[in-house]
Amino acid sequence: MPKKIRLGILGGGGDSLIGVLHRVASQINDNYEITGAVFNPDFKANKAFAREIDVPLNRIYKDFDTLVEEEMKLPENERIQVCSILTPNFLHFPMAKKLLDNGFHVICEKPMTTSLAEAKTLQKAHKKAGTVFALTHTYTGYPMVRQMREMIKKGELGKIHKIDARYYQGWINTIIHDKKKRSSVWRLDPKKAGISSCMGDIGVHAFNLVEYTTGLKVKSLLCDFNYLYKDNKMDVDGTVLIRLDDHVKGVIRSSQVATGEENGLAIAIYGEKGALRWEQERPNFLYKMSDTEPTQIYKPGHEYNSKLSLDGTKLPAGHPEGIFDSMANIYLGAAKAIRGKKYDDGEFPTMEDGVRGMNFIEATVASHKAKNTWVKLMK
Amino acid sequence: MPKKIRLGILGGGGDSLIGVLHRVASQINDNYEITGAVFNPDFKANKAFAREIDVPLNRIYKDFDTLVEEEMKLPENERIQVCSILTPNFLHFPMAKKLLDNGFHVICEKPMTTSLAEAKTLQKAHKKAGTVFALTHTYTGYPMVRQMREMIKKGELGKIHKIDARYYQGWINTIIHDKKKRSSVWRLDPKKAGISSCMGDIGVHAFNLVEYTTGLKVKSLLCDFNYLYKDNKMDVDGTVLIRLDDHVKGVIRSSQVATGEENGLAIAIYGEKGALRWEQERPNFLYKMSDTEPTQIYKPGHEYNSKLSLDGTKLPAGHPEGIFDSMANIYLGAAKAIRGKKYDDGEFPTMEDGVRGMNFIEATVASHKAKNTWVKLMK
Amino acid sequence: MPKKIRLGILGGGGDSLIGVLHRVASQINDNYEITGAVFNPDFKANKAFAREIDVPLNRIYKDFDTLVEEEMKLPENERIQVCSILTPNFLHFPMAKKLLDNGFHVICEKPMTTSLAEAKTLQKAHKKAGTVFALTHTYTGYPMVRQMREMIKKGELGKIHKIDARYYQGWINTIIHDKKKRSSVWRLDPKKAGISSCMGDIGVHAFNLVEYTTGLKVKSLLCDFNYLYKDNKMDVDGTVLIRLDDHVKGVIRSSQVATGEENGLAIAIYGEKGALRWEQERPNFLYKMSDTEPTQIYKPGHEYNSKLSLDGTKLPAGHPEGIFDSMANIYLGAAKAIRGKKYDDGEFPTMEDGVRGMNFIEATVASHKAKNTWVKLMK
Amino acid sequence: MPKKIRLGILGGGGDSLIGVLHRVASQINDNYEITGAVFNPDFKANKAFAREIDVPLNRIYKDFDTLVEEEMKLPENERIQVCSILTPNFLHFPMAKKLLDNGFHVICEKPMTTSLAEAKTLQKAHKKAGTVFALTHTYTGYPMVRQMREMIKKGELGKIHKIDARYYQGWINTIIHDKKKRSSVWRLDPKKAGISSCMGDIGVHAFNLVEYTTGLKVKSLLCDFNYLYKDNKMDVDGTVLIRLDDHVKGVIRSSQVATGEENGLAIAIYGEKGALRWEQERPNFLYKMSDTEPTQIYKPGHEYNSKLSLDGTKLPAGHPEGIFDSMANIYLGAAKAIRGKKYDDGEFPTMEDGVRGMNFIEATVASHKAKNTWVKLMK
Repeated sequence: MPKKIRLGILGGGGDSLIGVLHRVASQINDNYEITGAVFNPDFKANKAFAREIDVPLNRIYKDFDTLVEEEMKLPENERIQVCSILTPNFLHFPMAKKLLDNGFHVICEKPMTTSLAEAKTLQKAHKKAGTVFALTHTYTGYPMVRQMREMIKKGELGKIHKIDARYYQGWINTIIHDKKKRSSVWRLDPKKAGISSCMGDIGVHAFNLVEYTTGLKVKSLLCDFNYLYKDNKMDVDGTVLIRLDDHVKGVIRSSQVATGEENGLAIAIYGEKGALRWEQERPNFLYKMSDTEPTQIYKPGHEYNSKLSLDGTKLPAGHPEGIFDSMANIYLGAAKAIRGKKYDDGEFPTMEDGVRGMNFIEATVASHKAKNTWVKLMK
Repeated sequence: MPKKIRLGILGGGGDSLIGVLHRVASQINDNYEITGAVFNPDFKANKAFAREIDVPLNRIYKDFDTLVEEEMKLPENERIQVCSILTPNFLHFPMAKKLLDNGFHVICEKPMTTSLAEAKTLQKAHKKAGTVFALTHTYTGYPMVRQMREMIKKGELGKIHKIDARYYQGWINTIIHDKKKRSSVWRLDPKKAGISSCMGDIGVHAFNLVEYTTGLKVKSLLCDFNYLYKDNKMDVDGTVLIRLDDHVKGVIRSSQVATGEENGLAIAIYGEKGALRWEQERPNFLYKMSDTEPTQIYKPGHEYNSKLSLDGTKLPAGHPEGIFDSMANIYLGAAKAIRGKKYDDGEFPTMEDGVRGMNFIEATVASHKAKNTWVKLMK
Repeated sequence: MPKKIRLGILGGGGDSLIGVLHRVASQINDNYEITGAVFNPDFKANKAFAREIDVPLNRIYKDFDTLVEEEMKLPENERIQVCSILTPNFLHFPMAKKLLDNGFHVICEKPMTTSLAEAKTLQKAHKKAGTVFALTHTYTGYPMVRQMREMIKKGELGKIHKIDARYYQGWINTIIHDKKKRSSVWRLDPKKAGISSCMGDIGVHAFNLVEYTTGLKVKSLLCDFNYLYKDNKMDVDGTVLIRLDDHVKGVIRSSQVATGEENGLAIAIYGEKGALRWEQERPNFLYKMSDTEPTQIYKPGHEYNSKLSLDGTKLPAGHPEGIFDSMANIYLGAAKAIRGKKYDDGEFPTMEDGVRGMNFIEATVASHKAKNTWVKLMK
Repeated sequence: MPKKIRLGILGGGGDSLIGVLHRVASQINDNYEITGAVFNPDFKANKAFAREIDVPLNRIYKDFDTLVEEEMKLPENERIQVCSILTPNFLHFPMAKKLLDNGFHVICEKPMTTSLAEAKTLQKAHKKAGTVFALTHTYTGYPMVRQMREMIKKGELGKIHKIDARYYQGWINTIIHDKKKRSSVWRLDPKKAGISSCMGDIGVHAFNLVEYTTGLKVKSLLCDFNYLYKDNKMDVDGTVLIRLDDHVKGVIRSSQVATGEENGLAIAIYGEKGALRWEQERPNFLYKMSDTEPTQIYKPGHEYNSKLSLDGTKLPAGHPEGIFDSMANIYLGAAKAIRGKKYDDGEFPTMEDGVRGMNFIEATVASHKAKNTWVKLMK
């Protein structure tokens, strides 16, 4: 009977939403205990937050480097085992790298890095370290997303020939139509927000969902962005044509100016024998379609679901679990891996997902810049 | 108090679905009476069908040319006033042309012609004739589609910046995966079915819906088809990137191999201030979305709707009207025009829609052939 | 190949909604021709309306009695064969009776009569006449309602043990909360509107749907009305407990003050092995539920449907048909019966449904008056 | 900055679903720490479970009485502050009573007691103790349920006149149709399961939801149960007519044999000016209806929601939160009360809800036994 895993938290202090999400998710299955943290770059705020959520102060460090240094001095059976990286995007890479180099397990928010080059470097570090690296593409933790993966793996759709994914949000509308706002917000400043807004922030989730559910790889893509205004330099909307194999095509649509959309991630996968349709805002309903039979509505918790899906459901059918539960499933999978237990490779996204994600983001930017021409992804 | 309009029917005999649709639609508002017809190229079958639906035999003609010839001999107040063309696609153009040249009004199924060149020729003939020409893009007759048009016209969405339309069907799956079937079916034979299957048959409806509801024109497009098999020559799936104006972009997705989809025409229109979302299979629900207010569900028959929408509803809210009623609305608009009454230009699609539709279809084919590059549409 | 059936129309003139519904429904399957009519008690208005919808004036009569008298003088092969009764409720009985007594077929709007006693009298007249009598419980014409009936008949739900039906509208809210309005409107005046508003007008549809779909008979009921105001004498809301057999129970909920509801007829039927759920405002979606399998969505036009259902669908799946089509199906069934063709007894409601409906309405009133005690229905 | 509240857990060990639900809910907002427990009546299993979830063993007690005894010996600032009672129903009362008598705060699963008499006794003990008592009617913690309460309180529906609530499950079908199973299962054994199955287990949730959202009290009720089989002694289905005020009526429908239903709690509330409709299985969608305006869909996390609703949402709109989050909101409210902070009385159900719930359950049984006659509830 194992002790809780000693978890370190980097970032996520104050009223950080991502902080709440990870903190709750780590606790849901009784697997983790927050042992140390740098919640905040400001040491005072960092300690204040630790007190607020009642985490012991003795391993609240003044910065990331101190955390690594001090923890390495502790005997292995007291040392933090895994760190969750919730800091601003540009810090993901250096922190993850250093943690891996020092033998820590890592749970990392997406985007994994700020470039494909960094991603590849990290991949090497990970191979060398041999520790667990989990990338929190949260949506893959939903029981019905896992069910899609398993049904497709079992061949229930036959050969897949068409994929249609979308991630639509509308919130940038409240910023972008005001010239002053759009020129001052860090989100739309390439220097601060990186090479992509819409694809980097959300499109990549849709891309990940495509590959996670189908087991197929996107081979090439063609992308058209919409910037909405001449003086705006960041993609806030884009449509990506994708090719996965001979005669297997699809589209990824992504937008932050899809007015009134909240968090509209959705996917439809069409195969020779059947199709599946799922929407993130109604995560507990999965539609299996056929040309000749009535559409079927799969729901979590029923015995007709796969083991991978059922492992991600805590309560009987009809008791809605949500995004915290989805993230908790990823933490649960990571816990199994950290403890050296058997786990399914659908339980959490990995380094490979991170590398492919960065490849996808860079390819969309390249395609748009090259006047909407086809760009190949790595094999 | 007007007499019913004398209607001639070309095609649509036997168990033709399009025949039922037009026949019912023409009767729904008590405006038309079937006066003459060539339901079927076989004269015997033609007469048999007339008897079956109890249309007087004296003006059931042996062929189209005879119909025109004989009707022209009749005094104008007895002569057929308008003909509905429901024949196979390649006959639309010659029939429509001859009818217009002889001063008849025309109601024509889509696609209007088999090429843009024919469409332009027909456009000239129509200008010369000065009669009414209605193209039955059926879906524009739905009260909630009309409501979209009116709300956008009134500026309720603000400036539009993104459009996402789709028309997904799955029925070609039941044919295409069998090599023998796909090589023998006329639908997939370019010699018989024309230059495009998916775009020509259904994608063009989505295109029409985009222009009908927004009042905007697609300026250029980039298209990628999927043929599914090397030996298949017809597009059965395609995604079209569209540009309507500076920074106004969108996508039209169309498929006949979207497994399990029935008649999945849908559109979402996003503007600065709001958005609208509608699906053909739930035609009486229109969603108005906003980034700050609750989504609103508009339904037909309520006083909050526009006049154009209310004119297309016969019963109070909650009494579902369907596709026959939608087509009937187009017939109703055409009846007003034929009788020289005032009508709204949203009441039926016209010659201009037909020309643009052919332009769209040819442009998608051209773009795909040119390896997915941008093709301009006419102004 | 039969000639169209000669149809007489009683009532339904002007902008009568029920008039449009029946007129369109009678035309949809090319079976009926309006041959004579008394659209309006005012002869001038009657003729004017006939001109408006282009019905020949020679058989537009000044009143019902004249219609019967004059038509009886005509040879049988010219005489009106069937009359549709669309007049105010209190006229249904005398008109239907006289028509049956003179050998006409009858299509009658509901409620069939104003009392159970009248209904029984009419039933006797009908037995004597031996002609066709169709009662237009419109909702039984929907393909998915018919599918429910057939699935239950085939035993797909196993033994039924629970039924939950509802018919909720809200429109009386716009009247009843104003003291003046509610005391002046004929709808809420027992002298003009009969013994019941909510149950008589809509509850009876829900009751009919229960018996139509399940094939079971309600044996006894207990009802509680809500009048909303002391000075209001008509039920505008009521809940009815029903018992159909030993341990087969259910509830019928009906309201005209269910704020915001439009035409909310719905039914759920639960059996040992499965359940069915259907809503009138989304008529083309039928849900088959199970405790162990995914819920299935049945839609019209698919081959997996029963013959009775498919006979009521004109277009392929995904082309929404609505309430006009539903009523048309009832007219189609009546046409078969009038022509002496074979038909399924699920194709149109009959005299027996009318008698049971009146029994139901009177029983709800009796139960409410007797302080919500059980009242038996006839066997 | 407060320390976490010291929480004791009674019951909920092993793979108890209610155990997971409470444990997760207590952790979600960083307010509680499990300090002591009797997870299981078997001391060995109790300790084993504590180890499994990594709770220190020193305050894992051999039974409830020992827990109270030992904790009372500790100084107040070390002692368990609040106990969550998750044991079988018959233990709720004695445990809660003893805890209150010893000055503990209590969080108690429903049903609060096994009889109204016990409930009243507990109420007195609570008054005397003056500590916090929270009853976990979980569903009141949903943000959209709270939003209903606030909208109604603000008068957005006007005077309410009709309420329709339902709680439908189907799982007892898998037991009851087998004679052997139904006579051996404790759930259907009145000696073990108490006076009511369907009403006691789930109907009471619907009842609570009615009073929670409307602020109205049910004054009298009339109930009809269905036992399905002669040899079954427990209600597995029942319909309850309710009266809340003059001309304010409604119905509560509850079933455990509603085949295929999972956890179908739902409510619709109709008022003079508007209505609200909500379903537990789609908890993040609240429908506001009107007779004249489009239906509005309220969703959590938007600024248009009330403070009480927003306090129950952790992430932005579109990130589904579920039943764990709902229960967490109740724990959050209780935490505020325990800490003596200000809280809204809508944040958690109380002793009064418990008393009324028991009153409701006993009244339904009494009404059914008295052949479906009206039974009054206490004021």
